[in-house]
Amino acid sequence: MRVLVIGCHPDDETLGAGGTVIRHVNQGDDVSICILTDGVGARHERKEQQKECAEKACAILGVHDVVFCDLPDQGLDAMPLLDVIRPIEQRVSKFVPNIVYTHFAGDVNQDHRAAFQATTVACRSVATSPVERVLCYETASSTEWAPPFPGSSFTPNVYVDIEDVLDQKIEAMTAYAHTHVSEVKPYPHPRSYEAIAIHAQSRGIAAGMKAAEAFALVRERIKKQGGATWA
Amino acid sequence: MRVLVIGCHPDDETLGAGGTVIRHVNQGDDVSICILTDGVGARHERKEQQKECAEKACAILGVHDVVFCDLPDQGLDAMPLLDVIRPIEQRVSKFVPNIVYTHFAGDVNQDHRAAFQATTVACRSVATSPVERVLCYETASSTEWAPPFPGSSFTPNVYVDIEDVLDQKIEAMTAYAHTHVSEVKPYPHPRSYEAIAIHAQSRGIAAGMKAAEAFALVRERIKKQGGATWA
Amino acid sequence: MRVLVIGCHPDDETLGAGGTVIRHVNQGDDVSICILTDGVGARHERKEQQKECAEKACAILGVHDVVFCDLPDQGLDAMPLLDVIRPIEQRVSKFVPNIVYTHFAGDVNQDHRAAFQATTVACRSVATSPVERVLCYETASSTEWAPPFPGSSFTPNVYVDIEDVLDQKIEAMTAYAHTHVSEVKPYPHPRSYEAIAIHAQSRGIAAGMKAAEAFALVRERIKKQGGATWA
Amino acid sequence: MRVLVIGCHPDDETLGAGGTVIRHVNQGDDVSICILTDGVGARHERKEQQKECAEKACAILGVHDVVFCDLPDQGLDAMPLLDVIRPIEQRVSKFVPNIVYTHFAGDVNQDHRAAFQATTVACRSVATSPVERVLCYETASSTEWAPPFPGSSFTPNVYVDIEDVLDQKIEAMTAYAHTHVSEVKPYPHPRSYEAIAIHAQSRGIAAGMKAAEAFALVRERIKKQGGATWA
Amino acid sequence: MRVLVIGCHPDDETLGAGGTVIRHVNQGDDVSICILTDGVGARHERKEQQKECAEKACAILGVHDVVFCDLPDQGLDAMPLLDVIRPIEQRVSKFVPNIVYTHFAGDVNQDHRAAFQATTVACRSVATSPVERVLCYETASSTEWAPPFPGSSFTPNVYVDIEDVLDQKIEAMTAYAHTHVSEVKPYPHPRSYEAIAIHAQSRGIAAGMKAAEAFALVRERIKKQGGATWA
Amino acid sequence: MRVLVIGCHPDDETLGAGGTVIRHVNQGDDVSICILTDGVGARHERKEQQKECAEKACAILGVHDVVFCDLPDQGLDAMPLLDVIRPIEQRVSKFVPNIVYTHFAGDVNQDHRAAFQATTVACRSVATSPVERVLCYETASSTEWAPPFPGSSFTPNVYVDIEDVLDQKIEAMTAYAHTHVSEVKPYPHPRSYEAIAIHAQSRGIAAGMKAAEAFALVRERIKKQGGATWA
Repeated sequence: MRVLVIGCHPDDETLGAGGTVIRHVNQGDDVSICILTDGVGARHERKEQQKECAEKACAILGVHDVVFCDLPDQGLDAMPLLDVIRPIEQRVSKFVPNIVYTHFAGDVNQDHRAAFQATTVACRSVATSPVERVLCYETASSTEWAPPFPGSSFTPNVYVDIEDVLDQKIEAMTAYAHTHVSEVKPYPHPRSYEAIAIHAQSRGIAAGMKAAEAFALVRERIKKQGGATWA
Repeated sequence: MRVLVIGCHPDDETLGAGGTVIRHVNQGDDVSICILTDGVGARHERKEQQKECAEKACAILGVHDVVFCDLPDQGLDAMPLLDVIRPIEQRVSKFVPNIVYTHFAGDVNQDHRAAFQATTVACRSVATSPVERVLCYETASSTEWAPPFPGSSFTPNVYVDIEDVLDQKIEAMTAYAHTHVSEVKPYPHPRSYEAIAIHAQSRGIAAGMKAAEAFALVRERIKKQGGATWA
Repeated sequence: MRVLVIGCHPDDETLGAGGTVIRHVNQGDDVSICILTDGVGARHERKEQQKECAEKACAILGVHDVVFCDLPDQGLDAMPLLDVIRPIEQRVSKFVPNIVYTHFAGDVNQDHRAAFQATTVACRSVATSPVERVLCYETASSTEWAPPFPGSSFTPNVYVDIEDVLDQKIEAMTAYAHTHVSEVKPYPHPRSYEAIAIHAQSRGIAAGMKAAEAFALVRERIKKQGGATWA
Repeated sequence: MRVLVIGCHPDDETLGAGGTVIRHVNQGDDVSICILTDGVGARHERKEQQKECAEKACAILGVHDVVFCDLPDQGLDAMPLLDVIRPIEQRVSKFVPNIVYTHFAGDVNQDHRAAFQATTVACRSVATSPVERVLCYETASSTEWAPPFPGSSFTPNVYVDIEDVLDQKIEAMTAYAHTHVSEVKPYPHPRSYEAIAIHAQSRGIAAGMKAAEAFALVRERIKKQGGATWA
Repeated sequence: MRVLVIGCHPDDETLGAGGTVIRHVNQGDDVSICILTDGVGARHERKEQQKECAEKACAILGVHDVVFCDLPDQGLDAMPLLDVIRPIEQRVSKFVPNIVYTHFAGDVNQDHRAAFQATTVACRSVATSPVERVLCYETASSTEWAPPFPGSSFTPNVYVDIEDVLDQKIEAMTAYAHTHVSEVKPYPHPRSYEAIAIHAQSRGIAAGMKAAEAFALVRERIKKQGGATWA
Repeated sequence: MRVLVIGCHPDDETLGAGGTVIRHVNQGDDVSICILTDGVGARHERKEQQKECAEKACAILGVHDVVFCDLPDQGLDAMPLLDVIRPIEQRVSKFVPNIVYTHFAGDVNQDHRAAFQATTVACRSVATSPVERVLCYETASSTEWAPPFPGSSFTPNVYVDIEDVLDQKIEAMTAYAHTHVSEVKPYPHPRSYEAIAIHAQSRGIAAGMKAAEAFALVRERIKKQGGATWA
């Protein structure tokens, strides 16, 4: 199984799908993480530090294949979407993923929305596409702040039990506490350690689990050979 | 301020709006709770015990005006809706509420859906209606299990801070642990004490609070005299 | 893998998920089919003949575990939902399925809608539930006739390649051409052989396949042990 | 052109589509009005008087073909839907309409919702169906009071200019001012004469007209012969 | 109570929330109006005249705190959203509003959509945010022309009685009749005086009032101190 | 009857509405086709060849009035929407269409979404607008790949029988097989000849026809003179 996680900013991959990534790694799947922007533009200029943090966080998740696309932070909406599509298409073409995790269409952050739109193009269901499953994850401090209108509010239908790996997910987040401007905030901010744990517990409760990550399924294609997309 | 809480089964009022009710009571509002069914039909026959528990729970919330409509548990969908509308209309007519809290339209429980539909009729916006605000609450072990389809998934837009009264809300739930068949379940069931606390924390996080109850606003009418509907 | 297919009327199981059922059977999954109504009330009275046809069709799909609940055809909406929930709960409890296929919430047929609602209750996500995946299938001559309103229009997100088994699915439908009133109609009726093939091809095209069945995912729970829900 | 208007209660046909009916009559279309319930059950028992009023109102609209189905007022939700479908199917079968106007799926009135569901069944798009166009109208004092949730809120996409016939529509409503309990209420009730005029003007403004009736299109089938469904 | 009204073009504030603003002023609330664009780009170049008109209109509403952001008219969609967010964030940060009124997400005008998106970012629910209530208003000649698709059609759930101040609202609009190209159009254009009155009456009818402004609630946060967000 | 078809790229007009265009031509309507982009930017540079193909395809449909706007292919999202609106407004103003066909709001292609948004502005319902009917068509290899979220999934409500002209529609597509990079792909790609036929048959089946094109109605205005918008 080959798993591609697309995120706009360093920390999105951990916040949104960190626990699920750990489970993929634990069962021997190949995981690649693709970070679209440099994650610094609107905050500070220490681009290299930001990348080191991302690499450290991903290493804690068990992933060493981290690709940076260096698009401008908070600027994806101002680019032709084609320029966001292309690096994702290249990643899909090179890495040949079975499963793709990406941002949600209705997030309050404009980069996230562009990343979602670009992913749907890059993963369109042509016969030759390797992609069997595309899912949207939630990004703390963005998805829950979307307006309560149809198409914007996140409605999960896939729950992954992360009880056994929640501590490891939170440990990965510690890597982002040391960026120039910490991505980790004090509770009750959604990007606090406590909030991350509580949110996972809350999603778990809805699915009969002690902790979970929740996703909205965009598309699943169960091909002829009957392979499973998850395990 | 006069506040009416409509619930299908004893414990819905506490699960859905218990913290908010306490806050209404604390600021001197008149609160009345209307429990539509006897809450026993599908489980056991100790109707009187069920009512005692409800009265005890409501007393912990600070409410002594509890009205039982004695409709059949898990049977509201099989009655003419008119027979669900009438007791609610009577309550509205007698109690003259400014604010009404009721079930959500998309809950996985058929009684909840009927209660919602009946409330929308009983609280329709005629000029003479006293009702200024109608809100849907979430009911643990029902709302979060609704299908992920438009109209069924709960999308809150009102958050009430219940940090200071969360313990009292959970205390009210203890009254339901002593029914013949306990309504309180072991964690991670949504009706466990832990889950109730976690869910409140999770809703709080989305609103910059430490604990909250979340509601979907059905309708608010800000009348001429400019009165506030909340405080 | 244990697979439960719930249908209101004999032929729904084949129309909606016949090809997918064959694939489950072919890969060694245990499949059980649960037919809620006798499928005769509104049309004719030859109940036993109807069952024979269903058993024959299911046998062609490769399934010999067919359970009839004998609820009244075109009458599920007029019963307390609880009476539709109970036989499904019993099936879930006895058969312990991992995957459940059911009707869609917005179908133009009132039995289908009740079956969907009842399934969501019977498969609610308590910790002890065996169900890992609930999907809605399309029923020819019902789903495509639903009104174009949110919540009623079917929006698939799961596609199963049935190219290799489409002929076998259509062969199963022939069993229903010999009921007292044939369920198979002349083209371009959605329940004609030609229409069944065309619809499968059309769903396939959207997913880069030559023929597919399409589903709307209600819920997937990926439990701790990391088992796959499909294969 | 043959036009069928389905309404639950006497006055729905006038409130919802009165102006449009007049225009159909004026251009020589055959119009039939089908009133599902006796319109008295929940209010008073003068059934015959209610029918006389309906006939008088329809006569003012220019329609003399008025069929009463005598189903119970405010009771359609408590009947098997099949019993609501059948009289509509009979009407469709006998009258052979090209256009059908019916209630909206999300109305706050349970009879309206049942009428809508039954119409979608009776007008399903089989090859032999004469129906080319199905539209939902708004019913004053019901449609505007629906909850603001997807599937319940009315979103029109067809506007018919009724500037020249608005007075005649309102005159038709006067027939209902003389029922035992007047259907016409004092302003600002939605069923007051003033409100009917204002609502028409308001819908007109959205479409560049001085007065309009608004509809939500359920389905249009433009058949081979290329006939127009409107004129 | 501190009230911030965000509008793209001079006249949006009056069309969308003029009556409500008057009521806020009348009860002693502090109201600030923030006009994002110069409102001239696509029409004419008399920027200063446009501002004078806006100041005059706002003065009639009773507001003297009017801030112009001078972004390009009909050009917000072509800017990085960040550049629309920043002036709103600054306004929120300086004015510290409790209530924010803004454009609707689905308006047919691209500036309005960008303003909505930017507002949701600027008013995200962090613990330190002063914002307790965010509402979308309708803008005549834009909101009613949106496509009838989920997420685009405006569905109000808050109604403010403006019967007593409707004349004053319309008087404020007269200020815009004297711009180089008049914003006020002849009836039945939605921006005609007659249409503004009719629309207010129509919204009122739905809420049992003689005239109203209607809003869609984005988010309400009822904080610990139990303050009311309206009065 | 005057019919305007708006498409982003050469072949969209044929894929989306080719059969319907032929029917309009056959019944004597004036049809004009407006192609917004040069259709080459992202693929190759043979702009003139692309236009020749479009003219040839349109000629096969029976249309000789083809206007090219020469906007950049895959670049409409990166332009101010105003620059997409203007050429459409000019076309509407010059051609004075009664019916307009355009792209769907939720297509997976960013140009399509911009074209839709621009059309809604150019065809807004002012009193003087000639436009009586606006419909969205489906574009093979884009509409069916949209995400399954409200507002993005295409829900048709208008079906046009194209059985008699399906061959001619497919013949028009052959013109695009000879562009530098063929727009026609091998089956089961949605833009293969087989897929075009199957999709038409599938849409037909849903409407009781042997082949159909399906549309989502944006708005219909039935003006005073009672003219029909179709025939």
